[in-house]
Amino acid sequence: MTSQSSTLARIRIVLVRTRHPGNIGAAARAMLTMGLTQLVLVAPARFPDADAVARAAGATAVLDAARVVATLDEALAGCALAIGLSARPREYAGRVMALRDAAREAVAQQGGGDVAIVFGTEMSGLSNAELARCGIAATIPANDDFSSLNVAAAVQVAAYELRVTSGLGQVWSAPRFAAATHDEIEALHAHARRTLTAMRFLKPDNPRRLLPRLRRLFGRAALEREEVNILRGILARVDEFVGKAGKG
Amino acid sequence: MTSQSSTLARIRIVLVRTRHPGNIGAAARAMLTMGLTQLVLVAPARFPDADAVARAAGATAVLDAARVVATLDEALAGCALAIGLSARPREYAGRVMALRDAAREAVAQQGGGDVAIVFGTEMSGLSNAELARCGIAATIPANDDFSSLNVAAAVQVAAYELRVTSGLGQVWSAPRFAAATHDEIEALHAHARRTLTAMRFLKPDNPRRLLPRLRRLFGRAALEREEVNILRGILARVDEFVGKAGKG
Repeated sequence: MTSQSSTLARIRIVLVRTRHPGNIGAAARAMLTMGLTQLVLVAPARFPDADAVARAAGATAVLDAARVVATLDEALAGCALAIGLSARPREYAGRVMALRDAAREAVAQQGGGDVAIVFGTEMSGLSNAELARCGIAATIPANDDFSSLNVAAAVQVAAYELRVTSGLGQVWSAPRFAAATHDEIEALHAHARRTLTAMRFLKPDNPRRLLPRLRRLFGRAALEREEVNILRGILARVDEFVGKAGKG
Repeated sequence: MTSQSSTLARIRIVLVRTRHPGNIGAAARAMLTMGLTQLVLVAPARFPDADAVARAAGATAVLDAARVVATLDEALAGCALAIGLSARPREYAGRVMALRDAAREAVAQQGGGDVAIVFGTEMSGLSNAELARCGIAATIPANDDFSSLNVAAAVQVAAYELRVTSGLGQVWSAPRFAAATHDEIEALHAHARRTLTAMRFLKPDNPRRLLPRLRRLFGRAALEREEVNILRGILARVDEFVGKAGKG
């Protein structure tokens, strides 16, 4: 296990009094896509439930391992840090920050216990008393006129931030093919100049604009060897037509 | 309209051949929470649909304004940049990057047309031909063993990144009260030293550990004036008890 994935293993997602079991399932799916597996449910309205399984879309291992507890204090037992999500401003004098900064705090909290990320109910979020039990109140930046994320969507965004902040933000990259060498690229430009001149598209007395523009374009593209071969093949074919037209 | 919100106004969310109308509704909600309003649907299986309205949870204006088109090319007409989301690696020789970097490209693309963010079907994402129409292939970093985000969850994460990258990441902050002044804080420390000494909790001959620890704790907390008053009130009450015990 890498240190990054062990950081994610210490993250506990806590859902408080969730009303719709479908949201619990969607949250489990959101968690597992980002590599989180610890789910704690505080007094859910319905759980286990078929709707949760349906929306989990294969993340049933997270649901099966979920702990159901009666109070937020039970859910937070053994945690070194609790981060409560809240869209609404509160009369709360603790540390308040944007989700991205809170994710950094969560990842920086090394050892000494788990880190809980706490989400409230669908209708009203966390109560003031619940948020006061969290060392950090975190907010997902949102549209002032429509700030209510679905609870599973909020779990998805938070889990994503935790994954990227943990250094697990690598993605697949484009396939790499052999780059063209400098001399191959220069031969291409020389060929293009000859062909364009033969086509009378390039004026030999005033070539200044066109060739630098082409050079800029192909420079940006960072040509591969195979691409140079394709372009030279096209030029050679054009050369044949220009040659025939010259004879005809 | 600020320049940041006009950046978001230029973002077009394109959903290709979405199968479940509930996902369209959830995507509309996700968009609106982040301030995005332009939704284009390419050949949706069912739309309009009651499930879409239900899952939009109030973001019906986005659904009402959604354009339905037959092909991806129609959806991308007038766009200066199209960013296609793909979880799977592809035999695709274009620019491939993580979502966060793609969001920077989207925001940097000023003027000259809209920026489209393109999402594929629930089962298989975008086809290779569809992804090839996008200038950038973007990936949301995910768990290799379970990488399939729900399409609306992916829209939520992408919209969140676009909002934060656009400079609209501000959140509510903790209420600010008057900070205690230096002399108020020093008077508190002096009072604490007197009280703790009277309580015989602090040894006058070896006070070194306790007072610096208290100073460090209250220093971290950045005391407010009202808090200093509360703490001095508690000390004064303790002083009464200690004084009575001394007489008794």
